Amino acid sequence: MKNFLSFADAGDYKALLAQALEIKQNPYGYQHVGKNKTVGLIFFNPSLRTRLSSLKAAYNLGAQAWVLNAGADSWTLEMADGAVMNGTTQEHIKDAIAVMSQYCDVLGVRTFPTLKDKEADYSEEVLSKILQYATVPVISLESATLHPLQSFADLITVAETKRKERVKVVLTWAPHVRALPQCVPNSFADWFSEVDWVDFVITHPHGYELDPKFTKGARIEYDQKKALEGADYVQAKNWS
Amino acid sequence: MKNFLSFADAGDYKALLAQALEIKQNPYGYQHVGKNKTVGLIFFNPSLRTRLSSLKAAYNLGAQAWVLNAGADSWTLEMADGAVMNGTTQEHIKDAIAVMSQYCDVLGVRTFPTLKDKEADYSEEVLSKILQYATVPVISLESATLHPLQSFADLITVAETKRKERVKVVLTWAPHVRALPQCVPNSFADWFSEVDWVDFVITHPHGYELDPKFTKGARIEYDQKKALEGADYVQAKNWS
Amino acid sequence: MKNFLSFADAGDYKALLAQALEIKQNPYGYQHVGKNKTVGLIFFNPSLRTRLSSLKAAYNLGAQAWVLNAGADSWTLEMADGAVMNGTTQEHIKDAIAVMSQYCDVLGVRTFPTLKDKEADYSEEVLSKILQYATVPVISLESATLHPLQSFADLITVAETKRKERVKVVLTWAPHVRALPQCVPNSFADWFSEVDWVDFVITHPHGYELDPKFTKGARIEYDQKKALEGADYVQAKNWS
Repeated sequence: MKNFLSFADAGDYKALLAQALEIKQNPYGYQHVGKNKTVGLIFFNPSLRTRLSSLKAAYNLGAQAWVLNAGADSWTLEMADGAVMNGTTQEHIKDAIAVMSQYCDVLGVRTFPTLKDKEADYSEEVLSKILQYATVPVISLESATLHPLQSFADLITVAETKRKERVKVVLTWAPHVRALPQCVPNSFADWFSEVDWVDFVITHPHGYELDPKFTKGARIEYDQKKALEGADYVQAKNWS
Repeated sequence: MKNFLSFADAGDYKALLAQALEIKQNPYGYQHVGKNKTVGLIFFNPSLRTRLSSLKAAYNLGAQAWVLNAGADSWTLEMADGAVMNGTTQEHIKDAIAVMSQYCDVLGVRTFPTLKDKEADYSEEVLSKILQYATVPVISLESATLHPLQSFADLITVAETKRKERVKVVLTWAPHVRALPQCVPNSFADWFSEVDWVDFVITHPHGYELDPKFTKGARIEYDQKKALEGADYVQAKNWS
Repeated sequence: MKNFLSFADAGDYKALLAQALEIKQNPYGYQHVGKNKTVGLIFFNPSLRTRLSSLKAAYNLGAQAWVLNAGADSWTLEMADGAVMNGTTQEHIKDAIAVMSQYCDVLGVRTFPTLKDKEADYSEEVLSKILQYATVPVISLESATLHPLQSFADLITVAETKRKERVKVVLTWAPHVRALPQCVPNSFADWFSEVDWVDFVITHPHGYELDPKFTKGARIEYDQKKALEGADYVQAKNWS
């Protein structure tokens, strides 16, 4: 079964990009794709852009959709395998995800990192359970470590607006008042480090290194000024 | 006006079962049924399976749907007739249900028992008010005493999977850490006690007798081992 | 860009009324209007009637729809321009409304008055920010000072049921246990004071005068008995 969780799931990214640009030109021309299909969207955390854009995408493609806010709309979910559920949780995620899978053709899932337990976050604790129990393809609407739809949208924007063959794209750390997840910069690196017409540079203070499994050998330049020299596109983002 | 609240509303259950099996074979073949129709779903209590399956059913049948979480999405509802609404409630259920009826063609309703006042629960206090004020057919998505869609789904499953003419179906009480409603076992008895190709047996400890208006003379066997002998299907469920 | 926020936005109200009556006769006959369109509905405050009627209207017109409960479904919104967002708000309304605009073709917005700061309320603080940032037409689903859809619906009801050329319509203040907004009476006056086949009278105790920009010179009669004499329609409503 095909999922969409990271750049690796994009397959031939050039073909995918070409298809996305074609659909943007002709947004209602693919309604046969979604005919009699239902997109399920489950949010373990709040969302505005991803929620609305996913709904609109489903509608444009001729599909129906349902949205579930975990906790608020349904039951409090137990995440731990083999847990004796004598506390406040009411339904095990194992059952919940199997049920959701029965009533949709593709399941979009938003989960957040705890930002307290890096190991748990980087093992994608919640998402990996969902993948284990889902019986339909899963699309990440942002997970503990990645946000593939946003990075793909960024790539589409760059592809649509660039005026020359090769472009320099810089991902730079920026200050913020709160501790923020690494999903967006991880994901940005995961995608842009792979695009063969992009010169990709990452810049951040010492100690803010992203996980090498996402930066995949991309050039890291600690001198921000130097990193930004000649940049065509800059993604400024905080991460903790 | 036709409602769907219990086995009695199924009419000819064999015809209904045959129709359900036919729709399962051909789920998108009935979209003329829902054309220009809207299914309203009002949840006074949380729901996962019933919420999603009802939405999916509406979509499969070509209908649109809306979902309302009572309290969270709209106003706090006053249930008492003639109440002077000078407290925290903001809208009377009498008006609310009449309004909902105007904007849907069928109204699915989930209510729960209080589990504190058996008489109030067994009089279906909330559901009966809704029935009083609704001007469209009402479908129970689980009420204080019954859960007809679940029992009908159970019947469909048995009918689909049985390998012989007659089958023995046992409803057995099972332990649980919390006090749970009687809706599911009541409803299971309400349906399975009526099916002429089912040998239906109920087993539970002394003191856990279900209401005779739902068990309708079904065989009750307090010795669980004996009850389960030769069973083809077992529904294990806690109730308090 | 056209918005629908008050009587002034109705344009030729006689033509609009005729169109509404025609659509009521033929509710599914205009589905070309909504084809491939999405109605966005954002609720900063609870709603039952307006929520469901707007959804049903979208469906009847062949459009899709999404609903967002501000706060519960998405992020906590910052309203103040130029605010340093180091508190509990997570997203600025400026971005949020721009995002919503991208994923719908018309945006319905419900906001409430604070009932604590009349100047802020009558400047339509929230709605005016939304208008500033929206890039699609905005429909008021009730704002701090007006409720145009309700008043238009009232006008449709009067037009549908009246048995004579001219009718007398009275808006009367009525007691209530709580302080209620002025939106509905303001809006009622905003509409009915303009209809040339209506003799419109407002009655209320001294000190409850509505804003003259909405009553627009309508006859105010403090003697309720006298005001109601010969009335064909009475709107009884509390306001504070």
